[in-house]
Amino acid sequence: MKILIVGGTGTLGQAVVKELQQRHEIVVIGKSTGDFQMDITDPASVRATYEKIGPFDALVCTAGRVHFGPLEILTHDQLNFGLQDKLLGQVNLVLNAFPYARDKASFTLTSGVLSDDPVVFGAAVSMVSGAVDAFVRAAAIEMPRGMRINVVSPGVLQESMDKYAAFFRGHEPVSAARAALAYSKSVEGGQTGQIYRVV
Amino acid sequence: MKILIVGGTGTLGQAVVKELQQRHEIVVIGKSTGDFQMDITDPASVRATYEKIGPFDALVCTAGRVHFGPLEILTHDQLNFGLQDKLLGQVNLVLNAFPYARDKASFTLTSGVLSDDPVVFGAAVSMVSGAVDAFVRAAAIEMPRGMRINVVSPGVLQESMDKYAAFFRGHEPVSAARAALAYSKSVEGGQTGQIYRVV
Repeated sequence: MKILIVGGTGTLGQAVVKELQQRHEIVVIGKSTGDFQMDITDPASVRATYEKIGPFDALVCTAGRVHFGPLEILTHDQLNFGLQDKLLGQVNLVLNAFPYARDKASFTLTSGVLSDDPVVFGAAVSMVSGAVDAFVRAAAIEMPRGMRINVVSPGVLQESMDKYAAFFRGHEPVSAARAALAYSKSVEGGQTGQIYRVV
Repeated sequence: MKILIVGGTGTLGQAVVKELQQRHEIVVIGKSTGDFQMDITDPASVRATYEKIGPFDALVCTAGRVHFGPLEILTHDQLNFGLQDKLLGQVNLVLNAFPYARDKASFTLTSGVLSDDPVVFGAAVSMVSGAVDAFVRAAAIEMPRGMRINVVSPGVLQESMDKYAAFFRGHEPVSAARAALAYSKSVEGGQTGQIYRVV
């Protein structure tokens, strides 16, 4: 399969590349690195990159940024940032792909454990993750030409604990390699509309 | 209690007013009707209206619009419409209220059954409802001064079935009066961080 991995140069993305490149042709897409560049928040940029890459069988997105900070001082702009980036960015990847994705192509997005298991300072992150989960569940029943869509919802990454440990006390960290298995299940399996929780 | 009901002139809002006005002082807020007017998508408009109304004990929001339409032709603007209106509009009501809401004030937002139980053409609606649910679950653990926050997630309203029946085949409609009980439970009870599913 030809598999596009958006965010494939990040911590989680690299683990997904490592897992899937053993068996498939991988195209890494980044904001400023990777084989191709794309701004996921801009539908025109998404389409232009797809146009360059040509037909593909699967897309994985491990990209997407969200503001992390105290509820009482969250601003409208900080909330909008995650909605435009991690939420609509990932949705843009799906909705603009239909002319380029092959029949039965799969899409695997990324949310996160905070949708169900919130932490202090994480309200904007929870909001975005809950939206991605619900979008995927709904989009699955309308995907055209046998296409599939799933989402991986990983816990805090072991590799990020130096930065996040203080905010995720009591959370059991997940290695990127273990989370990558869920992407493999989504891409190389046959399920659709699933939320793969890796916690 | 002094209770603000944003969207109190709509079908669901009227039922909530009817339920709560038996025991409380109600202030109805609408976009162009009601006792006070406010544009929930504009934080400055939200604050200006709170400034006029003064201190309150509870806020209920039954307002918020989302685009309903086929996944394959959903546009970025249509997706953004619901994010700015039903999602950030409701979040704006909470985040701008802290200087005006009394200690232990409660906030009760509205999502909808599609977050968990999607229908064809409902992906943008599901996305927004899932975001509202996750935001409430997360915000609850950071609310200041003993304030509470819950969300009511009603099924399709009996009163709207003339318009929506074709899109919700097999869904058991819920009367607005029955959904209103969940708002009463949230406002007049003591729970926080709850998703009250009325299906």
